[in-house]
Amino acid sequence: MQRHTGGRDMWDVDECQSPRMGSVILGVDGGASNTVCVCIPAAMPFNDPLPVLARTVAGCSNQNSVGEDRARETLERVMSQALLKARRRRSNVCAVCLAVAGVNHPIDQQRMLDWLREIFPSHVKLFVENDAVAALASGTMGKLHGCVLIAGTGTIAYGFTSDGREARAAGAGPVLGDWGSGYGISAQAMTAVVRAYDGRGPETVLTNNILDFLGLASPDELIGWTYEDQSWARIADLLPIVVESAESGDEVANKILHNSVGELASSVNAVVQRLELGGEDGNHSFPLVMVGKVLEANKKWDIGKEVIDCVTKNYPGAYPIHPKVEPAVGAALLAWNAIASELGSDIRNVQ
Amino acid sequence: MQRHTGGRDMWDVDECQSPRMGSVILGVDGGASNTVCVCIPAAMPFNDPLPVLARTVAGCSNQNSVGEDRARETLERVMSQALLKARRRRSNVCAVCLAVAGVNHPIDQQRMLDWLREIFPSHVKLFVENDAVAALASGTMGKLHGCVLIAGTGTIAYGFTSDGREARAAGAGPVLGDWGSGYGISAQAMTAVVRAYDGRGPETVLTNNILDFLGLASPDELIGWTYEDQSWARIADLLPIVVESAESGDEVANKILHNSVGELASSVNAVVQRLELGGEDGNHSFPLVMVGKVLEANKKWDIGKEVIDCVTKNYPGAYPIHPKVEPAVGAALLAWNAIASELGSDIRNVQ
Repeated sequence: MQRHTGGRDMWDVDECQSPRMGSVILGVDGGASNTVCVCIPAAMPFNDPLPVLARTVAGCSNQNSVGEDRARETLERVMSQALLKARRRRSNVCAVCLAVAGVNHPIDQQRMLDWLREIFPSHVKLFVENDAVAALASGTMGKLHGCVLIAGTGTIAYGFTSDGREARAAGAGPVLGDWGSGYGISAQAMTAVVRAYDGRGPETVLTNNILDFLGLASPDELIGWTYEDQSWARIADLLPIVVESAESGDEVANKILHNSVGELASSVNAVVQRLELGGEDGNHSFPLVMVGKVLEANKKWDIGKEVIDCVTKNYPGAYPIHPKVEPAVGAALLAWNAIASELGSDIRNVQ
Repeated sequence: MQRHTGGRDMWDVDECQSPRMGSVILGVDGGASNTVCVCIPAAMPFNDPLPVLARTVAGCSNQNSVGEDRARETLERVMSQALLKARRRRSNVCAVCLAVAGVNHPIDQQRMLDWLREIFPSHVKLFVENDAVAALASGTMGKLHGCVLIAGTGTIAYGFTSDGREARAAGAGPVLGDWGSGYGISAQAMTAVVRAYDGRGPETVLTNNILDFLGLASPDELIGWTYEDQSWARIADLLPIVVESAESGDEVANKILHNSVGELASSVNAVVQRLELGGEDGNHSFPLVMVGKVLEANKKWDIGKEVIDCVTKNYPGAYPIHPKVEPAVGAALLAWNAIASELGSDIRNVQ
């Protein structure tokens, strides 16, 4: 596999930075809509807040969406710009962790590792993971243990045992029924509006609230609105309207949110059960990292809290974590943690 | 609104046909994937089989899918070719009924009528309807009374009272929850496979049966398969596998089909209730026209029969009809019936 031809120019950073600067780690989070890269010092003590030297953002780097060439160009650009901004050279990099959507198989992972190796010499530690793994690491300071639940536009549950076994549930997209997601909740709310309108379902305040929000005059127009652009994120944007409608007491909206809680909890339970994260008796302690706008609702209706209540009924040792850092930092911490485990405290002395 | 510039050439048929031939009616059914036009004699006695003079087929004419210009070009071509094949001139046409998908509002209807009027002179009777109306007419020999249930790739219920009131239910597409459709049934079956695989749902023979049918090795690959091409018809093609799995006794598949029956019956019931087709006591008689591959299953699991059983529990006067003619003939019969009602028996003497 050839590197992107534009690659060499991007790394001109190598020639213009000071060689005295310290060793660094790059963490990259490549999600559905954009790609974030952070550069952190490898010799970092665990300060709070973490000392992020630079942060850069680029477009989508999911190769299933934009193709392999464009994905790689984006990843290379976002990394080289982060180094430039941090005033470091490529030779200062001691580890890189790419956590990108669309990496689902060991084959995807190996191809990405081979490509990264063309950019970074053999002493640099390289890690390639699914983007859900960075979200887990953002809550566990880089340790791959426990379960993460992501519920934004889509949803997935992903877990690791301390000895490296992993499992996932959901994350298959709307066709394959990720009903607890922001998209799933919003699509069910729009469906409820259509059903109330044509007489198949009960009346609901979702009708007025959604039509007002979208500036439409009649539920008839919802059909045209969805056909116009079926992008999941556009539909998932209705989430706050559904939560507000539920908070105002609407039964239909409340039922949709309760179903969503059940779906999300069932994803977590499936992962925890398969990995036996709760131990044989189900009571062992493990981190449950909660990420995404569906789980952030913190008014009267708190979907995240309800999901935690459901999970802890079966697994009382699950302790919820709402990460304070973003997934790109999680990716960097994952690399940091792996190196630290390998080298003991030596890594702290790297200069 | 200008006519398509290619239009004049298409109608060269006018110059080469015999003027002695009789009056005709054109019926057009424009669905999601193709457009069918039939030409029937206006003076037709109600023979069985109906004397269809010509039948022509072209691509999609849903203006929401292909744009207005291409839709009109397709419609004009399919009509002119039908006349050519029937050895008739444009001046032989006494009525035209276009029943096309994407005509949902009176505004769509009027624009289409204005355009048709540029092709056919003022004495020609013109009718523009949603394609579901042609399906109803195909079961009632052109009379707009009763309810039609279409369940193919998508699903819709559409009804008319004798005095011209109309109502519909569902028909909003998969985002808005047409779960009884072929697409809905298949998407639920694929979801069940993913849920069994990741531990959220019970084991099901759908897993082996669907993977075998698609030539995939693991449920993991289903995700890639759906992302590759999300066209509804491709997914709806799994319907026979779901029916076979249910017939072999699989509980998950049976539950999906029972849900589908409930959804389809609820669409019919909503239309019948709003139009009071069953009269005040619910016992009046009305036609229930059943169209589409979901309702054609005629082995052990007969979805259509189950839906009829559900509907007749509430409305014992509903009498099911499985049309013997296609919707394009229904469209032509609709025009024939409207003219016949208007002119009494005079129409039969037109030559």
